[in-house]
Amino acid sequence: MKRIIILINCNDRKGIIASVTNFIHQENGNIVYIDQHVDGVDNLFFMRLECEFLENDFSSSLFRTHFNTTIGSQFEMNWQLHDADIKPRMAIFVSKYSHCLYDILSRYSAKELHVEIPLIISNHPNLEPIAKSFNIPYYYIKVTKETKQEAEEAQLKLLQEYQVDFIVLARYMQIISPKMVSVYQHKIINIHHSFLPAFPGAKPYHSAYQRGVKIIGATSHYVTEDLDEGPIIEQDITRVSHIHTIKDFILKGRDLEKIVLSRAINLHLNRKVMVYDNKTIIFIS
Amino acid sequence: MKRIIILINCNDRKGIIASVTNFIHQENGNIVYIDQHVDGVDNLFFMRLECEFLENDFSSSLFRTHFNTTIGSQFEMNWQLHDADIKPRMAIFVSKYSHCLYDILSRYSAKELHVEIPLIISNHPNLEPIAKSFNIPYYYIKVTKETKQEAEEAQLKLLQEYQVDFIVLARYMQIISPKMVSVYQHKIINIHHSFLPAFPGAKPYHSAYQRGVKIIGATSHYVTEDLDEGPIIEQDITRVSHIHTIKDFILKGRDLEKIVLSRAINLHLNRKVMVYDNKTIIFIS
Amino acid sequence: MKRIIILINCNDRKGIIASVTNFIHQENGNIVYIDQHVDGVDNLFFMRLECEFLENDFSSSLFRTHFNTTIGSQFEMNWQLHDADIKPRMAIFVSKYSHCLYDILSRYSAKELHVEIPLIISNHPNLEPIAKSFNIPYYYIKVTKETKQEAEEAQLKLLQEYQVDFIVLARYMQIISPKMVSVYQHKIINIHHSFLPAFPGAKPYHSAYQRGVKIIGATSHYVTEDLDEGPIIEQDITRVSHIHTIKDFILKGRDLEKIVLSRAINLHLNRKVMVYDNKTIIFIS
Amino acid sequence: MKRIIILINCNDRKGIIASVTNFIHQENGNIVYIDQHVDGVDNLFFMRLECEFLENDFSSSLFRTHFNTTIGSQFEMNWQLHDADIKPRMAIFVSKYSHCLYDILSRYSAKELHVEIPLIISNHPNLEPIAKSFNIPYYYIKVTKETKQEAEEAQLKLLQEYQVDFIVLARYMQIISPKMVSVYQHKIINIHHSFLPAFPGAKPYHSAYQRGVKIIGATSHYVTEDLDEGPIIEQDITRVSHIHTIKDFILKGRDLEKIVLSRAINLHLNRKVMVYDNKTIIFIS
Repeated sequence: MKRIIILINCNDRKGIIASVTNFIHQENGNIVYIDQHVDGVDNLFFMRLECEFLENDFSSSLFRTHFNTTIGSQFEMNWQLHDADIKPRMAIFVSKYSHCLYDILSRYSAKELHVEIPLIISNHPNLEPIAKSFNIPYYYIKVTKETKQEAEEAQLKLLQEYQVDFIVLARYMQIISPKMVSVYQHKIINIHHSFLPAFPGAKPYHSAYQRGVKIIGATSHYVTEDLDEGPIIEQDITRVSHIHTIKDFILKGRDLEKIVLSRAINLHLNRKVMVYDNKTIIFIS
Repeated sequence: MKRIIILINCNDRKGIIASVTNFIHQENGNIVYIDQHVDGVDNLFFMRLECEFLENDFSSSLFRTHFNTTIGSQFEMNWQLHDADIKPRMAIFVSKYSHCLYDILSRYSAKELHVEIPLIISNHPNLEPIAKSFNIPYYYIKVTKETKQEAEEAQLKLLQEYQVDFIVLARYMQIISPKMVSVYQHKIINIHHSFLPAFPGAKPYHSAYQRGVKIIGATSHYVTEDLDEGPIIEQDITRVSHIHTIKDFILKGRDLEKIVLSRAINLHLNRKVMVYDNKTIIFIS
Repeated sequence: MKRIIILINCNDRKGIIASVTNFIHQENGNIVYIDQHVDGVDNLFFMRLECEFLENDFSSSLFRTHFNTTIGSQFEMNWQLHDADIKPRMAIFVSKYSHCLYDILSRYSAKELHVEIPLIISNHPNLEPIAKSFNIPYYYIKVTKETKQEAEEAQLKLLQEYQVDFIVLARYMQIISPKMVSVYQHKIINIHHSFLPAFPGAKPYHSAYQRGVKIIGATSHYVTEDLDEGPIIEQDITRVSHIHTIKDFILKGRDLEKIVLSRAINLHLNRKVMVYDNKTIIFIS
Repeated sequence: MKRIIILINCNDRKGIIASVTNFIHQENGNIVYIDQHVDGVDNLFFMRLECEFLENDFSSSLFRTHFNTTIGSQFEMNWQLHDADIKPRMAIFVSKYSHCLYDILSRYSAKELHVEIPLIISNHPNLEPIAKSFNIPYYYIKVTKETKQEAEEAQLKLLQEYQVDFIVLARYMQIISPKMVSVYQHKIINIHHSFLPAFPGAKPYHSAYQRGVKIIGATSHYVTEDLDEGPIIEQDITRVSHIHTIKDFILKGRDLEKIVLSRAINLHLNRKVMVYDNKTIIFIS
């Protein structure tokens, strides 16, 4: 069986669901999963389908043509087709903290993630031994104020060379340039160590301590040109109290960061995320 | 506009979703919400639809007939049709604790709940003043070992008289007889003060204290003949520690109980619950 | 037995705990609870004691004198003595929302709270029937731009008349003037409907919806001159998703607001809160 | 400075806290942390102290003698003295699952844990490469029905050889014999994949799925002779729904298991746990 995932976005109109499910039926597909969302404020329709076809019965290009010439144009749909069997290729960017990297790689090695990790890129050499122990190429590209542009060129070249589909910033402590953001639009996942929009920018644990909050959080989001203001994919929190120092916040936060980032990666991998109006629609999982 | 809710359950087969959505389309309805679930182990299909029709365009009895004679019989569906505008009629059973009762009635009075509450029944007279302050009839029916059967007859008579659709046991401290359970099959909602299946039966906070657990919980479930073993609708937990006495457990538990029970009531009212194999399917809310 | 609560704050020095516990011992008191905190950054010491004395053996004024002339002056302590048997007197301010009010009053009526509630003040007449059903005087004092100062004078007069110790703003939709704040320094408890410092000010649920957060929260804090920037007492959160409208946020938020506010009130009543540097120390509870 | 941790347990009597704090004061120690608990039901007193002494001023054996001959005997205390600078030696037992092992070792390698890990023991050879990548000796000791006793002898020999202080069962799928339990009384930490006491024994995720619970959990506890009935150190939970298969439960559970186990290890390492009446007292952390 061939399994595909379809993501659809268009203006909401009567009869869309019937038209889509009919279309799949006529193409001899079986819908194994359907989830939809209507934004009543902006009158927008979103849908995620998983369908199965007999292997010999399915041609991706024919399907695309049929779709586009029928319901695709009829409802003016933005839509994507993904082959569920193909593993997306993910680059990991790190700096010096190892907790998110270890968490991702240990899941990868336990085959929890439907992904290929062709390379790790870092602005520091420190974590190379970890990459090595998992047999993943590690590229140390130093970044300074002066070399920032040059460094990013080198990064982009590597990403193309390795045919990377999306990037995970696993506590990578550099701001991503608008150019890189535009090349990987909604394809760069960051983990920020606060419950955004509280405490954006640098040193959120210090600010949280200073403010005397009783909960701290972590937020995974797509990177946009505006720092820490991209569409939020996942968040979680943990309790703190007056007895905790900034160091305690940092340690407690690590557990949040790694779990929240891994959940976001999984949602992205399973095509459960659609971005709209700087927000995300997260289909049930 | 007329809004209806349809719940469907049948064996899973290819083409169900397309058939159902087509049917609604042909009946000139608009699907405003669709959620489905396939139990892959038992090969069962579940669906919840909310549809809108032009008021003059919709006849409930015609719709039923059309449905039954076409897809209903084709797929051998168990299905229900609910008019979303009609408020279900809910009886509340209480004993001496007031927290769940106050929570339900304060939501009722703030128009948070799409429900009618025609009466409150209790085996104690204590909470009558609360009922009075919300202008709801309160029936005190004493229950003793000797009078238990007689009391239940009286309760059933009242329930019929007031055309009650379902019952909420808001910390009602009496076991419901099999007869009552069979009359209100999956229509009696209980709140049990533990995270079931841990600590069923009497005095769960005492048992939790004794065991030294670090979390306590509450569970709302449909009542079946087997005590505290019915289909779970909602659960939640809170943290405790060695410093908490049984009295603390009871006080902390109250907040859980009332919130969990109210969530379960809301799910039931919105027809978001389907029962199958002593478990619940809870559609997204 | 006479039970007292002592709160101590001073610079941290060697031997404080021994000195305090010795002092209590010499006064023939028994320490039934001790909790302390050292802020290592600012070198400050905080302590909360609960002690029991034989009723006839204890004179509050003698104790104060002994304390002040010995360890109090030796360590330059700021300290407070509270008689645990005396119920603090709490005023509730409300506007139109009833959920927090109902929650507080239902706990009050179930004797969960060690408090007297001599009056409720509101800028709207709507909730008077609720106050009546709990037999609590309700004062409707209209507040407009023009009458704001006058209204506050009237409020202050009532608060003095009823000998109010502290004030709870149970979704009171008016900004408290600096004058009122200075009279009730760290004695006005507010509930704000966001996880501060995210979304201060008006319409936080609208802002949260706009930002696309995956968690919403509520924060109870002492009111200071700076809006929503006072010392945080308690916070909690709940999950939301893209399917939830602003109306859903508001409804979900209500459960948070009432539970968080009630927890904060309880902490305050049990003298578990000390304020320092615009933050709170919350002793274990 | 020399930092020590003292844990005290005795019957509750007037004046204990004053006596202990005085004693430390007279020994020229400074109390940097004090936490105590009184079990009012059983009239028992528990205390944890962290104290600092000038390095040259402190003799562990003299301190012990002074303590025993004064307050130790006066109050008939059970007490322990721990040198906070000495890292406890922890053995890890594993089978085939890697998630808990990776989690512990990645914290270890990031110096988050105040511990030495001299060896890993397994009944399977599978995880040896992980041990190797962290440079920790890995002993594969096969366990069958026939060789169980012999295998445990070999384990015990290794534990002694490596001077192991306590053992962590990181999803070790074998029942520990009473002999091993008695040698390491309250020194074997297990992670069980349910919120105990629900679903003890084998296949808890299967049972949880079968029961239709809405939350699953994990529990870390000390191993006693009674399977899954030892004193609970830490628990946590996560939400599940009808859409999740047993495989989903297992995957979600892994995140719980590793986090809960690591928290329990940290509590144990920091001497924050006291066991009494098959329950734990967890001092604030």
